[in-house]
Amino acid sequence: MKYNINIVSHNKKVLADKGSILSDIITRAGINLSRFCNKKGLCGKCFVEILKKDIPPLKKNEEDLLKQRGLNSNYTPARRLSCQYRVTEDLKISIPDESILQEAEVLTTGVDQRVLIDPPVKKYYFRLPEPEIKKPFSFSGLLKEFFKNDNLKIDLSLLKKLPGFLKKNKYNISLAILNNSEILDIEPGNTLNKNYGLAIDIGTSTVIVELMDINSGKSLDIEYKANLQIKYGLDLISRISFAIRDSGNLELLQKTILDQLNKMIKAILKRKKISKQYVYEAVIAGNTTMNHLFLNVPVKSLALAPYNAVFTKIPELGASKAGLNINQNGNIYIAPNIKSFVGGDISAGLIASGMAERKGNYLFIDLGTNGEIVLKKGRKFIAAATAAGPAFEGMNISCGMMAVPGALYKAEYKKRLITYTIKNKKPAGICGTGLIDLVSIFLFRGDITEKGMITNNKKKIRITENIFITQNDIREVQKAVAAVKAGIRFLLDKYNISISKLDGILIGGAFGNYLNVKNTQKIGLLPPVDPDKVIFLGNTALAGAKALLISGCLRKEVEELIDNISYCSLGMEPSFQEYFIEALDFKK
Amino acid sequence: MKYNINIVSHNKKVLADKGSILSDIITRAGINLSRFCNKKGLCGKCFVEILKKDIPPLKKNEEDLLKQRGLNSNYTPARRLSCQYRVTEDLKISIPDESILQEAEVLTTGVDQRVLIDPPVKKYYFRLPEPEIKKPFSFSGLLKEFFKNDNLKIDLSLLKKLPGFLKKNKYNISLAILNNSEILDIEPGNTLNKNYGLAIDIGTSTVIVELMDINSGKSLDIEYKANLQIKYGLDLISRISFAIRDSGNLELLQKTILDQLNKMIKAILKRKKISKQYVYEAVIAGNTTMNHLFLNVPVKSLALAPYNAVFTKIPELGASKAGLNINQNGNIYIAPNIKSFVGGDISAGLIASGMAERKGNYLFIDLGTNGEIVLKKGRKFIAAATAAGPAFEGMNISCGMMAVPGALYKAEYKKRLITYTIKNKKPAGICGTGLIDLVSIFLFRGDITEKGMITNNKKKIRITENIFITQNDIREVQKAVAAVKAGIRFLLDKYNISISKLDGILIGGAFGNYLNVKNTQKIGLLPPVDPDKVIFLGNTALAGAKALLISGCLRKEVEELIDNISYCSLGMEPSFQEYFIEALDFKK
Repeated sequence: MKYNINIVSHNKKVLADKGSILSDIITRAGINLSRFCNKKGLCGKCFVEILKKDIPPLKKNEEDLLKQRGLNSNYTPARRLSCQYRVTEDLKISIPDESILQEAEVLTTGVDQRVLIDPPVKKYYFRLPEPEIKKPFSFSGLLKEFFKNDNLKIDLSLLKKLPGFLKKNKYNISLAILNNSEILDIEPGNTLNKNYGLAIDIGTSTVIVELMDINSGKSLDIEYKANLQIKYGLDLISRISFAIRDSGNLELLQKTILDQLNKMIKAILKRKKISKQYVYEAVIAGNTTMNHLFLNVPVKSLALAPYNAVFTKIPELGASKAGLNINQNGNIYIAPNIKSFVGGDISAGLIASGMAERKGNYLFIDLGTNGEIVLKKGRKFIAAATAAGPAFEGMNISCGMMAVPGALYKAEYKKRLITYTIKNKKPAGICGTGLIDLVSIFLFRGDITEKGMITNNKKKIRITENIFITQNDIREVQKAVAAVKAGIRFLLDKYNISISKLDGILIGGAFGNYLNVKNTQKIGLLPPVDPDKVIFLGNTALAGAKALLISGCLRKEVEELIDNISYCSLGMEPSFQEYFIEALDFKK
Repeated sequence: MKYNINIVSHNKKVLADKGSILSDIITRAGINLSRFCNKKGLCGKCFVEILKKDIPPLKKNEEDLLKQRGLNSNYTPARRLSCQYRVTEDLKISIPDESILQEAEVLTTGVDQRVLIDPPVKKYYFRLPEPEIKKPFSFSGLLKEFFKNDNLKIDLSLLKKLPGFLKKNKYNISLAILNNSEILDIEPGNTLNKNYGLAIDIGTSTVIVELMDINSGKSLDIEYKANLQIKYGLDLISRISFAIRDSGNLELLQKTILDQLNKMIKAILKRKKISKQYVYEAVIAGNTTMNHLFLNVPVKSLALAPYNAVFTKIPELGASKAGLNINQNGNIYIAPNIKSFVGGDISAGLIASGMAERKGNYLFIDLGTNGEIVLKKGRKFIAAATAAGPAFEGMNISCGMMAVPGALYKAEYKKRLITYTIKNKKPAGICGTGLIDLVSIFLFRGDITEKGMITNNKKKIRITENIFITQNDIREVQKAVAAVKAGIRFLLDKYNISISKLDGILIGGAFGNYLNVKNTQKIGLLPPVDPDKVIFLGNTALAGAKALLISGCLRKEVEELIDNISYCSLGMEPSFQEYFIEALDFKK
């Protein structure tokens, strides 16, 4: 027997079997109904309006949940929990906005990439029935029974406080629960609106902590700092060398980043007047080395063939164990590493880019020192690190600098050279995007040849009074460009995709919106696709951390994704070497 | 297409579908084939002899596993791993003894109650392939891949030592794995034969630690001590009172039992020259109060209505966290509590008794202070604590004493009174079994009436020069007997079972074999069933701990069992009060 379900709010009509659960019908109709408590009737987030008289009376839990929302039981149109409602007749229903899963924007560049808010850490507010002699037999059993999960985990520390706490608060409590399976904290009264998390981007150079409201998926505040590990080594390799030089150094590196993170967390929470008790999770997106150093895990194998990480995924890690100062039973999720030089920053970035969901062939490129490239062909993924070197980060360049105020970040040639600096400060040097623009203009003007030789026997090309580019700087750019270019060519070859068959190139990393696509193509860094196909995503590592903080589904997705990514070690491939040498010429 | 499989070693012939796995066929034929590694082809414990020529060649892992057993690949009859062998033709096979699951005897009273050895902690010996650049991406991934479990958990402490350790030992390692899902330790070379565990009975009066060889299920050594918590309270209620009197007392009680256990563990391991590193698990069977005190969990609610425990099941508990000095990543399993006065000692006891598997109606009785009774009718269980009091443990009796050397434990009347003491020592007092014999004889001789009055206006009945029984002692025995008798009657009534419909009475606890069934029936303690139906099981708590140590299935069973046990609070039942008063008379 089939019934007609008319979802008037969404203008959809569907058929339902007799006895089927209304929330299942709605979900199957393609509507993002909230399934917060997994159909247990506990959260009250899937109420629908039943536009009909003579429906089954409200259940006790429905009445309680309506009351929490300030609605009484006579409210019309009648509301019922769709996860508890069985279809026995034709129905006309309307789904209020608050029963639809909200979405959040995690990328800040305006690219439309939305994430459904369905966080691993959820809060529940209960008024528990007081225990009786017959049942349940224990206080923890009371929680398990009410939460309808006999395997609900409770830490010993919470267990110890449980009996006194329940009594004191008259069984009126809120729970923070991880993955619907583990109690992270128990709080007095209704604290549903206090659920915070941290998205943390541990970059080799920069550390970012972003405080998020988990309920709304909104960013509340953000804190940037230079990674203080820099004093032990500017780049990854020097930091790894430092770590393996002396037995205490690894721990020192860990302590440095932990202290720094804890200070940043303290500062941000103080500014927003939020207690760390309500911060139940931190998601970390770092490259493989940063992730290892954060956990004090040896890094020697990262730098020596066969370049193994010690871990890719870390299944469960308490914040206390990791040393992070949030809720003491809080959880740490580390975006999984792919390989030694393709880390959690990239896996998080892939998630933020939505690449897996895009149909067609895509390149994801992070234009940092490692120059990570991931190519997707249909459902197949391959990753490689190109070891582009630090030229694009302004290092090893005479007048190079990072993209901070005063950096020449953009140049145009309109009969004369026009340069722009960040925040319009007096020019102090050249950052990566400025370098690309300048080299492109030099090529156009004939200041350099396709082989990268400065013409007219000059030693350097002067930009401003203090800023110039030397022959050696050009060589550095050639090497960086060639690495990425050869890497892209190698992967495209490997998957047998011609450039014209690329549906898009997604650019992550710090470069962001400053990059001039046409100039990158002129110097050969990016392949000659339609510039509209090149999409800048900004800081994809941080965006990915935010996405993984507010979506449990995306955690599963990223873990499956990295299992399905092949890895290609370019340094071991003879044809990559050939491509690299060919790519040293500045040609499209 | 069906094939004939002739299992000549077991004289069984079965049919098998084409392509089915041989180990599945053997299991389905009712043969307890070892399925140690869950059909992963890793343990080599399900080799069978294929009595046929022209079978598929040995696989690499089969060859390695045969080599470990000192067999070469040409060995005849040909051996193949049955979990890796697909049936494609009629077969004649023979299953060697070493591929059959062994059984262990956990009860020491000679009752035939065997447990299949299939322990939660298993050891594996691997020679791992060295990692390559392409795959896997990490050392932990290497373990996961080889172990064919992507969710294999590895503690951070093990992760840190992993890369150096693997290299140093040339990828030649043994793993101790819990529930096929969590690595407890990683050891150099082949340590398969070192897998030990502890069965721990924390009784209110006595603490027992038994060291077991997990591979063979055999007991290696045992250590008994009086529970040192006794100095803070002789019985449960006084210990609970002590715990709630002052804030530090709970911790003091925990520290006392932990220190004592750790000393006992140290002593027993020293005697057997076994390193604690190889002790991966301890199973604890204690009453609810002892379990709470062991974990420093508040006990106040145990003694006040509605008498809730704080926990029944504890899902996972690291030995380090619990403070037990075994392998630092070792695991603690606590036999689940049922209710405040029916604890893990009883749930373990039920498992040891095999009551759930017995067909029919059974009573399980633990004749201690709480006098726990569990009645099984078909598949239904009901439990109650009768608060028998400590008379049967020799307390509150003028000349009472525990069942230690010198205790009058047995008495007979053959024209004159004949008494026996434990170890034939000079009589120092009377223990529980002796008390039951004496009261029964007094009744027979007319020294006391059915109402328990001493006849002939005597104040006391003298047994030996120094040992006697007073009117008050008789009253104590009456109360203890009445509690148990009324409890049994109440539960039988509740489930509507007449005494004649009882298939057996299982007696657990310290009483053991000393109890004279006919005398217990004469004084009314046990119902008048055929004495052959009364089965003494000895220390069922300890036996249950041993069973739970060597069988993962039994852990599932006990957890399901306690979920299905009803609880009856006798003190709240008016008819129990009536039965109790009636039962104060010594009548069958």
